[in-house]
Parts: sequence; structure tokens; C-alpha cells
Amino acid sequence: MIDVPGLVGVLAARGQTVAAAESLTGGLLTATLVTVPGVSKVLRGGLVVYATDLKHSLAGVDAALLAQRGPVDPDVALALARGARERCAADWGLATTGVAGPGPQDGVPAGTVYVALAGPDGQSQVSELHVEGERQHVRDSAVAAALGLLRAAVIDP
Amino acid sequence: MIDVPGLVGVLAARGQTVAAAESLTGGLLTATLVTVPGVSKVLRGGLVVYATDLKHSLAGVDAALLAQRGPVDPDVALALARGARERCAADWGLATTGVAGPGPQDGVPAGTVYVALAGPDGQSQVSELHVEGERQHVRDSAVAAALGLLRAAVIDP
Repeated sequence: MIDVPGLVGVLAARGQTVAAAESLTGGLLTATLVTVPGVSKVLRGGLVVYATDLKHSLAGVDAALLAQRGPVDPDVALALARGARERCAADWGLATTGVAGPGPQDGVPAGTVYVALAGPDGQSQVSELHVEGERQHVRDSAVAAALGLLRAAVIDP
Repeated sequence: MIDVPGLVGVLAARGQTVAAAESLTGGLLTATLVTVPGVSKVLRGGLVVYATDLKHSLAGVDAALLAQRGPVDPDVALALARGARERCAADWGLATTGVAGPGPQDGVPAGTVYVALAGPDGQSQVSELHVEGERQHVRDSAVAAALGLLRAAVIDP
């Protein structure tokens, strides 16, 4: 598991902030960050875009992309990360989108997750996960993977 | 503690949706709702407005009100609930704002929390809490109180 206080400390030392746009994790990513005392220097906020249309209206994901690919898609994840960064005025944007399960959603199998990162110098990265297990485990894995992208970008660049 | 699956079931039966604007709970309220299978019929999404300026830019809280009262205020809580409802196009809007602690914030003691509800017929309600205990307990209490306002509105009106 990610050392969340350590990650928050590194961001604070760099004077950088983070925000998230979350679909399947539904706020769990930002809620994980707020458990760390002093996170207010680092966490700007987030967008919980559980309904597909909110990915467009709140996070600015292109409506045609959403209509063509559906919400569980790597380019949608990247657009969500960029949207979080811009709408929340943060240095780093994180995003999660996927199928928590137990059943498939629009033909996408349960456990399929994309997490993405967008950064201050135009960096962007997306990871595809296939997680076995219950809904909560899929969500926990998505949060850990998203924070892992940020950790890799700021600690081991 | 609130029966969250029961609350989600009642909202689903009424064909109604909910969204949240969260400050001190940082996404924990919506993350609590997404633990319930089938919540996608009910949960639209949310705004995590941890930084004070996001309460204005994301949730539409009047900037003059925020400047005059600060973020931990009953009228700010009501404006956040209305903002969640409008920006996320939900029937019900919930909001949390407060001081998780351990220390005071801008002169407001730790454990001071306002939770608010805004509804489809112009209903609005705000509760003030004073919670003793650790940061996580303050947050858990805020989530329970916010869901309690919604429960009372839809189950025992």
C-alpha cells in the first residue's frame, strides 16, 4: 500500500497541490488523502463524477468521446485527470474510472479500471488494471494505483 | 449509525437522486454511499471543496459570504447543499463543513461541524454539531449527521 502521509509530505515540501476526478471510487481517493494531518496545504479538492453526464458537465470530458467510448476508457481517464487539475486549480490531477462490479457494465467486465495522472508540465499517464475480488477491493486497488502514479511522478521521477 | 442501504433503497423507490458538496469530510460522504450495490440509480456525484476558494468556484457559494463568515458557517453549509444539488443536477443536495481538528481553525474550535440539506421543493435544513474526539470520529459524525438529515426528509417527513 502507498505511504499516503509520505506522499503528502513530499508534495508539501515541493509546494505542490493535487485534486481528483473520481468515478468508481466515488470520493474514496480524496477521503484517503484527508486522513493525513496537514493535508490542507496539498489537497485542493475533487469532483465525484459518478453519473456519466457529470464527467462532461463537471470535469469537462468531451461529450462525443464519452458517447463513443463509454465512461470506462483510458482517454476518458486522462481527460478526467486534466479536468480535475484545471477545474480545481491544482498542480496534479488524478482520476479513476472503472467497473467495481459485481457484474459487467455496458459489456466491460467487473474489475476493469483506468487510473490517470495529469501534471504541471503537461505530463500525463494512464494505467489499466484488471482487479479480481469484491467491489471494495476493486475501489481500494484503484485508489492505490492512482496514488501510485502520483508517487512515482514526484518521488521517483 | 444510519442504515445506508435502506436510505439508498428509499431514494431508489422514490426515483430521486442525491449529490454532495463536502469540505471536512473530503469525499467520505459520497464514498459511503457508493459502498451500496445499485447506488448508481441514486447517486449523481459530488464536489469535494476542501480549499475555501473551491466552495465558490465549484459549488457557487457567494464569495462575499465566504469572506465575511469563513468556511465553517451555517449559511455556507446551506449554500453548499444548494450548490451540490444544482451543479450535479440532483433532487437532494447534502453538504458538510467544519473543523476536523486537532486544533482550531481561524478561531473555530475543533469538532464544530455544520451539515445541510437542500431539497426538490425548496426545502433546506442545517444542523450544528459539536463533536468530541479524533479527526476521523469528527468526519464520521459529520457523514452520519448529513445522511440523517436526508433520511429524516425522505423516510419520516
